[in-house]
Amino acid sequence: MPQIDHVTITTVERTPTSLEKQIIPGGFCAIDNVWVSGVHSGFKHRNKDLALIYFPKGATMAGVFTKNAIESHHIKYDKKLLNEQATFKAIMTNSGNANTFNGEKGDADVKIMAETLANKLAIHPDEVLICSTGVIGVPMDLTNFDKKVAHLSHNLTDGDSIQAAEAIMTTDTTIKQKAIAFEIEGKPVHLAAIAKGSGMIHPNMGTMLSYIVTDLDLGQATLLQLLKEAVRQTFNKISVDGDTSPNDSVILASTNKISVNPTKQNILLFQERLTEICQMMAQEIVADGEGASKFVTVSVKGASSLSDAEGIAKQVATSSLVKTAIYGQDANWGRVLSAIGQAQPNYLDPSKIKIQFISKKGSILTCKGGQGLDFDEALAFEILSEKEITIDIDLGLGKSQIAVWTCDITEDYIKINADYRS
Amino acid sequence: MPQIDHVTITTVERTPTSLEKQIIPGGFCAIDNVWVSGVHSGFKHRNKDLALIYFPKGATMAGVFTKNAIESHHIKYDKKLLNEQATFKAIMTNSGNANTFNGEKGDADVKIMAETLANKLAIHPDEVLICSTGVIGVPMDLTNFDKKVAHLSHNLTDGDSIQAAEAIMTTDTTIKQKAIAFEIEGKPVHLAAIAKGSGMIHPNMGTMLSYIVTDLDLGQATLLQLLKEAVRQTFNKISVDGDTSPNDSVILASTNKISVNPTKQNILLFQERLTEICQMMAQEIVADGEGASKFVTVSVKGASSLSDAEGIAKQVATSSLVKTAIYGQDANWGRVLSAIGQAQPNYLDPSKIKIQFISKKGSILTCKGGQGLDFDEALAFEILSEKEITIDIDLGLGKSQIAVWTCDITEDYIKINADYRS
Repeated sequence: MPQIDHVTITTVERTPTSLEKQIIPGGFCAIDNVWVSGVHSGFKHRNKDLALIYFPKGATMAGVFTKNAIESHHIKYDKKLLNEQATFKAIMTNSGNANTFNGEKGDADVKIMAETLANKLAIHPDEVLICSTGVIGVPMDLTNFDKKVAHLSHNLTDGDSIQAAEAIMTTDTTIKQKAIAFEIEGKPVHLAAIAKGSGMIHPNMGTMLSYIVTDLDLGQATLLQLLKEAVRQTFNKISVDGDTSPNDSVILASTNKISVNPTKQNILLFQERLTEICQMMAQEIVADGEGASKFVTVSVKGASSLSDAEGIAKQVATSSLVKTAIYGQDANWGRVLSAIGQAQPNYLDPSKIKIQFISKKGSILTCKGGQGLDFDEALAFEILSEKEITIDIDLGLGKSQIAVWTCDITEDYIKINADYRS
Repeated sequence: MPQIDHVTITTVERTPTSLEKQIIPGGFCAIDNVWVSGVHSGFKHRNKDLALIYFPKGATMAGVFTKNAIESHHIKYDKKLLNEQATFKAIMTNSGNANTFNGEKGDADVKIMAETLANKLAIHPDEVLICSTGVIGVPMDLTNFDKKVAHLSHNLTDGDSIQAAEAIMTTDTTIKQKAIAFEIEGKPVHLAAIAKGSGMIHPNMGTMLSYIVTDLDLGQATLLQLLKEAVRQTFNKISVDGDTSPNDSVILASTNKISVNPTKQNILLFQERLTEICQMMAQEIVADGEGASKFVTVSVKGASSLSDAEGIAKQVATSSLVKTAIYGQDANWGRVLSAIGQAQPNYLDPSKIKIQFISKKGSILTCKGGQGLDFDEALAFEILSEKEITIDIDLGLGKSQIAVWTCDITEDYIKINADYRS
């Protein structure tokens, strides 16, 4: 009978240590010339539901949007503007109504929202980007919207962006906001982000929104390129294969206060920090999964290609049977194995597959050499009792690897989603 | 404001009317020279867990197996035998242990099972096919297996196959068995089937097994061809895109008692009946979905290609958000729409999409012309209160259409799967 291989203590870290030292308070308001507001305006029954990020001196912006074939009305609008120009002064977001699939009225309402805000702030409507998140197919009620925008504008502050982070939430249970400070060429650079997103994310992503602001002057083309790469490495690892809602939007804005030489090294340093802050947001979205009780990293290594690693990681991360087993703290590696096989990778040698469950409590190897190991079930249960779990899969074939993030699925997910609309 | 279009009464039928008249009792035992047994033998704590279908005069067999890259030990074994020969005398199935990923012992155990049964029945081990279903990666305990097989053989009956249908069950809550009689060229032809399968089926199919027996003499090659087509049209509509467990097996056996001219028309008639009986089994599997409270047909029509129709139907049928909305009896067509967009079909004109919810209580059109309709929520709730629901999607583009079957997802699904292994 095969024996337990070994037990090692491995720490699962969600925030890169390098970054933790750099975290500063205030969110967007840690950056000069960024004003923020969030108020209740009636899109939701209660709670804040209208958010504004205002750049009095303007900001260069780039955006990445959903690949869903059904696009919310705001997506078409924002994409067009971002193609035509680089500088904007405001991003306004409402939560509670997705303004999706609302016919001509949907398009008209985006314009009305932009015009109403522009009018209030004495800026041009084309300097405003609009985002919406919430229920699909319900026409927007813009009655007295000018008064609501007046209230929003009246509440602008440069103290902390937390009220905006709160106002973009839908079924989120946690406010997602982070700001970091670091140096490039000895100059202080800032990055701040807020995000919303809960839903099961994967395979049916609820709407995800994230806004990121920096003060580093890079130009729209570079901002877009860096944002795309950061999204690929972070948000796309929780929203897989185009499994996106009609409203998903990520916007990166720069106030352009800080200039550095655009050397490869400097750009790379900024890219790393940008990816890290996006990763924090992505992981907070997963950790806030509707009804989720555990944060799960699915790590696949030893794959013969990145696409095999990705396919397997995503299949395991989306498996309802794996997610329920994790919820039940059951080291049911057979379901992980089955999901690996379902992914139908180009190369797979079952006799080389190793599957480990890892948490702060230790790690346990469950199978190897084409068969299960006689592991300590009590220890496995203890390992899986932690809130952060890694499912570690070694295919033993090549050097390609990937990690994606997901959460478990609980009865609460069903309860939350069985009557979300009403 | 757009208005309700119309309300029509539509009946959702799960059993083709043509077939209902032909249903006869007895399962496999309605066919001559088929003996069946099912007993408890210790693979499960209690309940029957060992099934035998015995053909004393032999049967021609063909099989269709999982596409999962991880294959149970029995699959390799059965595939090899079915490639080498056409005639068999027995199919033995154990439930409770999948005999998957058990290394060399797993392969050896399949042989031991076949040899033990062959010894008892005084037939050749190569005349036995073996299937297993249950937990993955737990070595089989074949202690005293000869005594268990003796018990199994002692219980053989030609009265009714219900005990075998019961013995192949795992998390199933209903026995799945049907037999039909019909005529070809005035001669009486029979088809009988049993099946097991529950699990969410889709997207993470629990193991599915089905055995179908006929008395029509067709030859192995034709049996295989007809079985493949029937599986494509039925079981593959609930087990989509290779989302199969390592153990899925469907075997068609013929006692060859009845001969008819192998005209195109006769073959087609048999194909239709075979597909219908497979459809009944497939739909019973979905209806028995773990924790499911509703049987859901996702019908997509008006697609510009079959692959677009299929992609959309499967995306909607696998959407956890759609499944929870159906459970909540919430006509949340926005989630259906979002899933349509997620499927990223080649052609989609949002303004042409119509989404209806249909049940015995009526039908309600929820959106049209690129926007939601102001439908009667009370009626929608009443329609969705039925146990059988159709989500009817008209893309308004072409003539391709498909229907796939799924179930809702409830808290009970989570409970059942959170501790299945222990």
